[in-house]
Amino acid sequence: MNLWQISEDTFNRKKLRAQETVYTNGNGYFCSRGTFEEGYPRATPATLLYDVFDDIPVGKEELANVPDWLVIKLFVNGERFRLDLGKVLEYRRTLDMQKGVISRHVRWESPSGIRLSISIERFVSLADEHVGCIRYSVTAEEQPGAAEKGATGGIDIDLRATLNTAMGNYDLMHWETIDQGQEDELLWLHSQTRHSLVQLVQSMSFTTRDQGFTREAFNSDIAPSIHLRGKLVPGATMTAEKLVVMYTSRDAGDPGQNAIEQHAKLLRESGYDDLLSRNIQAWSDYWRISDILIEGDDKAQQAIRYSVYQLRISASTHDDRYSVAAKGLTGFGYRGHIFQDTEIFMLPYFINVYPSIARNLLLYRYHLLPGARAKAKHNGYEGAQYPWESTLDGNEATPPSIIHPESGELIPVLHGKLEVHITASISLAVWKYWKTTGDDQFMRDYGAEILFSTATFWASRAESHPEHNDYEINDVMGPDEWHEHVNNNAYTNYMARWNIQAALDVFNWLQTNASDKTRALVQQLDLSDQRLQHWQDVAVHMRIPWDKKTGLFEQFDGFFKLAPLNQEEFKGRTKSYQGLLGVEEVQRYQIIKQADVLMLIIVLDQQFDLKTKRVNWDYYYPITDHDYGSSLTPALHTILACELGLVDVAYTLFMKGALVDLEDLRGNAAEGIHDACCGAVWQAAILGFAGLRL
Amino acid sequence: MNLWQISEDTFNRKKLRAQETVYTNGNGYFCSRGTFEEGYPRATPATLLYDVFDDIPVGKEELANVPDWLVIKLFVNGERFRLDLGKVLEYRRTLDMQKGVISRHVRWESPSGIRLSISIERFVSLADEHVGCIRYSVTAEEQPGAAEKGATGGIDIDLRATLNTAMGNYDLMHWETIDQGQEDELLWLHSQTRHSLVQLVQSMSFTTRDQGFTREAFNSDIAPSIHLRGKLVPGATMTAEKLVVMYTSRDAGDPGQNAIEQHAKLLRESGYDDLLSRNIQAWSDYWRISDILIEGDDKAQQAIRYSVYQLRISASTHDDRYSVAAKGLTGFGYRGHIFQDTEIFMLPYFINVYPSIARNLLLYRYHLLPGARAKAKHNGYEGAQYPWESTLDGNEATPPSIIHPESGELIPVLHGKLEVHITASISLAVWKYWKTTGDDQFMRDYGAEILFSTATFWASRAESHPEHNDYEINDVMGPDEWHEHVNNNAYTNYMARWNIQAALDVFNWLQTNASDKTRALVQQLDLSDQRLQHWQDVAVHMRIPWDKKTGLFEQFDGFFKLAPLNQEEFKGRTKSYQGLLGVEEVQRYQIIKQADVLMLIIVLDQQFDLKTKRVNWDYYYPITDHDYGSSLTPALHTILACELGLVDVAYTLFMKGALVDLEDLRGNAAEGIHDACCGAVWQAAILGFAGLRL
Repeated sequence: MNLWQISEDTFNRKKLRAQETVYTNGNGYFCSRGTFEEGYPRATPATLLYDVFDDIPVGKEELANVPDWLVIKLFVNGERFRLDLGKVLEYRRTLDMQKGVISRHVRWESPSGIRLSISIERFVSLADEHVGCIRYSVTAEEQPGAAEKGATGGIDIDLRATLNTAMGNYDLMHWETIDQGQEDELLWLHSQTRHSLVQLVQSMSFTTRDQGFTREAFNSDIAPSIHLRGKLVPGATMTAEKLVVMYTSRDAGDPGQNAIEQHAKLLRESGYDDLLSRNIQAWSDYWRISDILIEGDDKAQQAIRYSVYQLRISASTHDDRYSVAAKGLTGFGYRGHIFQDTEIFMLPYFINVYPSIARNLLLYRYHLLPGARAKAKHNGYEGAQYPWESTLDGNEATPPSIIHPESGELIPVLHGKLEVHITASISLAVWKYWKTTGDDQFMRDYGAEILFSTATFWASRAESHPEHNDYEINDVMGPDEWHEHVNNNAYTNYMARWNIQAALDVFNWLQTNASDKTRALVQQLDLSDQRLQHWQDVAVHMRIPWDKKTGLFEQFDGFFKLAPLNQEEFKGRTKSYQGLLGVEEVQRYQIIKQADVLMLIIVLDQQFDLKTKRVNWDYYYPITDHDYGSSLTPALHTILACELGLVDVAYTLFMKGALVDLEDLRGNAAEGIHDACCGAVWQAAILGFAGLRL
Repeated sequence: MNLWQISEDTFNRKKLRAQETVYTNGNGYFCSRGTFEEGYPRATPATLLYDVFDDIPVGKEELANVPDWLVIKLFVNGERFRLDLGKVLEYRRTLDMQKGVISRHVRWESPSGIRLSISIERFVSLADEHVGCIRYSVTAEEQPGAAEKGATGGIDIDLRATLNTAMGNYDLMHWETIDQGQEDELLWLHSQTRHSLVQLVQSMSFTTRDQGFTREAFNSDIAPSIHLRGKLVPGATMTAEKLVVMYTSRDAGDPGQNAIEQHAKLLRESGYDDLLSRNIQAWSDYWRISDILIEGDDKAQQAIRYSVYQLRISASTHDDRYSVAAKGLTGFGYRGHIFQDTEIFMLPYFINVYPSIARNLLLYRYHLLPGARAKAKHNGYEGAQYPWESTLDGNEATPPSIIHPESGELIPVLHGKLEVHITASISLAVWKYWKTTGDDQFMRDYGAEILFSTATFWASRAESHPEHNDYEINDVMGPDEWHEHVNNNAYTNYMARWNIQAALDVFNWLQTNASDKTRALVQQLDLSDQRLQHWQDVAVHMRIPWDKKTGLFEQFDGFFKLAPLNQEEFKGRTKSYQGLLGVEEVQRYQIIKQADVLMLIIVLDQQFDLKTKRVNWDYYYPITDHDYGSSLTPALHTILACELGLVDVAYTLFMKGALVDLEDLRGNAAEGIHDACCGAVWQAAILGFAGLRL
């Protein structure tokens, strides 16, 4: 078993879409799903570029799947090569994470009996982030009776490489062709998103060094193609290489010129082998910093590497206008929207291993401040309230409703209104980044403004209840999304208080270290003495539903009065408790979707003693839906389980997180990688099993 | 001025989409919008086939725009021909309605100065309904300095004909390629709708008799293409012909075999000229029956022919599984759904001129009965309640909500729930068809069942109010859609009563003429004596808000108590009153979207005396929004205006209807032809100006 490789040795059409997700190539500028070059009905090819969006009818915008560059169709004596036609004699597909390369080896017999060996290697260059490459080799096998099959003069090989514009995010098209042309060996395609008007130029070459193969370029606005045609005698092999270069109007400079010049230079000066070795070198550099070794458990070793691989391909190294989406760039799920998944689950990896990326992800949040301020204002509050889902600006991108896939009814989506806690999650991430990296410049220029603006939000969001001598935060949804419209969610209130305290601390630090900046922010954000005093007051009197004696948090006001759920009655279920009971009914029970109190204890780990951790674990762990609730939770729970010495539980939870996509444990891998899970798996290994604390 | 032709002599990109609608070709099996062969960003090419649907997220399903067969791209010395590049020296596009042919003549100078004459002729054959044809001619003009421009050896001409799969209904894709191949001169493309799994095969040929042009076929799953390449010396002309044949799995037989065999036969035995003359002959046959002459008013003459042209291309002559959609097959508006537009506005044309088509359109409604019964039952009623919008079955296809295009908010759509009157409109159409044609067989086998099932619905829908000694129909929306949740809408109640009475009449007729069928229906529909008596009772005591003394109907209970609207205050408006006042506010006023009481008087014309007509006209005509309310109303009002001797008003209203698309009076021609308007214009001419009564 190669611990750097993920492999499959059967072709299963039923798993087509899920495996497309698993075998995604990428480099943070773009990712391409593991769709087969020859194409299948119901396949979902997708190449998604970091922060390239187009409008959608509900929920604002989504990453816009670009014209597909993967297509290479093979015809042998006029017969179409496809794994569901003819006979598959051998099949193996491998993702080599060490090298960032996917390869496929197939031995295939055509319906008329011609046998071929086909080897395909593909990578999205980590060294040259605008470049994607495919090497395609076909060997005519020696076989008895070849003469009768007309193979004496060799068999006809027709390889067709294409850029396919007949593409959508599922059924929704985002691009239209503006122009298409040819420049020496290159075909180029200039497309534009239909609503957001992003310009994209893709250039393509398709070459072979095999004499006897003719090359023809077909200009087309719809499917510019290059065909290689020739004959193969038994035992002979032909090899062709498809290169694609992509630039958009969101990059600096003219995308057409950039693509064509870089591509021409590649063909002139380097070529496939050189590109491949630079890609391998770049991955090697990455792994030198990022690799984690797990000894004695091959599956865990592969899976943690897979998580670390995914975290790299989903994040740009240099673009601070976007962040890592819930599914990265690997699928259409959640439409490329940014959730607190990034800050809570993924950011710890980047802070510790790739702080420059972490910084960009936080700068993204800084750029959202105008939108977050508008959201707070719209809702009648001060300061900055971050949207639950965001895209290129701070405007709320959570759809107000979704359509039930079966009944067609419209179901309101409350997350954008009720999940206010994300604002504190972002502040915490700013703080952790600062504390870990010591990047004072970041805190001075950006972080402080985030902390002050969010503290202002919390102070205005908290309702003063003089009759209880406290401040309360009512009508929210905590991380546990199965209980809506709750009051005083422990996670929310505790985090809000923490946010305000952090802002006060940083205010003092800033006064000492950057008095000019302090003065500017005081003026800009109206940080009067009264306001700071009000912060203080809110922080001191924030209602925290916590029993001092036992150390037990109540998830929200009245949670303990809800009925317990007899989980025994649901043994063998294949759906979440919410799915079984319904959105209304599940709220009557003490059964939760995902870590809520426990998430608080994990993310603010150093604020709680072991007794508090234990008592809350004992209460909340058993009433969490670990199998069909959120995919986020299992790996995160691992950290706490490790701390409490529950090694077996920790391991089980870790593997649930680590294999969520590799084994499609939740049946939704087709929609894209669970990137938050990848981050949580890293945390589980490093903060959990390895016990790292900073 | 040619009274058979619609023409334009300038190319205006801003009007691109609206003019695509105007210049639609079709034959009732399919229509193709007037998109230019060379393609423009923001164009909306569409070829829609009668009753070929695919699923959509909200509102059930829509006509699925098939891979575009119109594409022909011309490159001259590598320069792309497009009207927004280079210089347009002459331009004329003409729809010849007499022949069913669209032609375009362009003189164009390329950016580098090469001058061409281009003539393009296109038709969707009325004689061979699976066939579409384009003839494309290019002439190199003699021009001074041609030698310097490298034209001595002639200029390079590259004509590329394609089937384009990168197509959607606007952004929504409906098809994916299943297979593609070549058969002699033909390329064929086999596609499948993504959800409803309709199979479509399109075959394409592209030929020229000009020696010296090479022909190359490019197989592709995405854009199968045939290129013709050669040189043109100054003064020379080359001509090429593109033929396309289309069959689907909804036709009898194997679509692939049908398309390829018919296409091969066409190429072998007939060719373009023969196809063209057959098409012209078929249109000539149509016009012999359908033409209407208006003397002394050229615009009106063209416009009435245009309406009669549209009515033909939107309806199949032989398929009773579908009906004429609100926009026919000419655009994406209303998604190909069927409204009562067909029965109230269009059917009178077909009943009087093409009764065999009228019969099919009513058979469509007969086939919907199971769905209409389910709808009635779902709502707690008996009998059959027709959906407000329908597609291939009787299930309601009105979207429950729509998304506001600007705010993104969800707006509930009440029509599917409240506009119950459609059920009686369909019964009336059945009755009129029978009375006009004398088709007793239809009434016996189909019509009676519709009338009885709808009467049963009305008898159960009407609430008994013994305290008023009447039956009432409450909580509805009449034809005037600006007043929701009203009680006892005059149109609805009167039509419901009429529906029941017609059912009773037909029951008596059926007993006399087909006692077996009567017995069968009595059993099947539970037409007990009590039920018939109940019908009688409901009919006699149905509340009709009508003042016997004055003859004035009140549109619904309480309408006369609403505030009058001072329309003077809105002079110069460019929006409907609902648009200006809002959905809620407009309901407070006596201002209406479209004929409601007046529609009743028009469709049941012979039930009312002249005094009643006059008094209701005087009341309701001035409070109707003729400019920005419904497009349906103006032409329909014409009939009544004629009867009342209001000739000037009649003419103004007639022209508002007749030019609605030709002059894009409402700014929404881009979404498709107003087919109901076409029907109303015919009625205005024949029932109005000509005064025909049967």
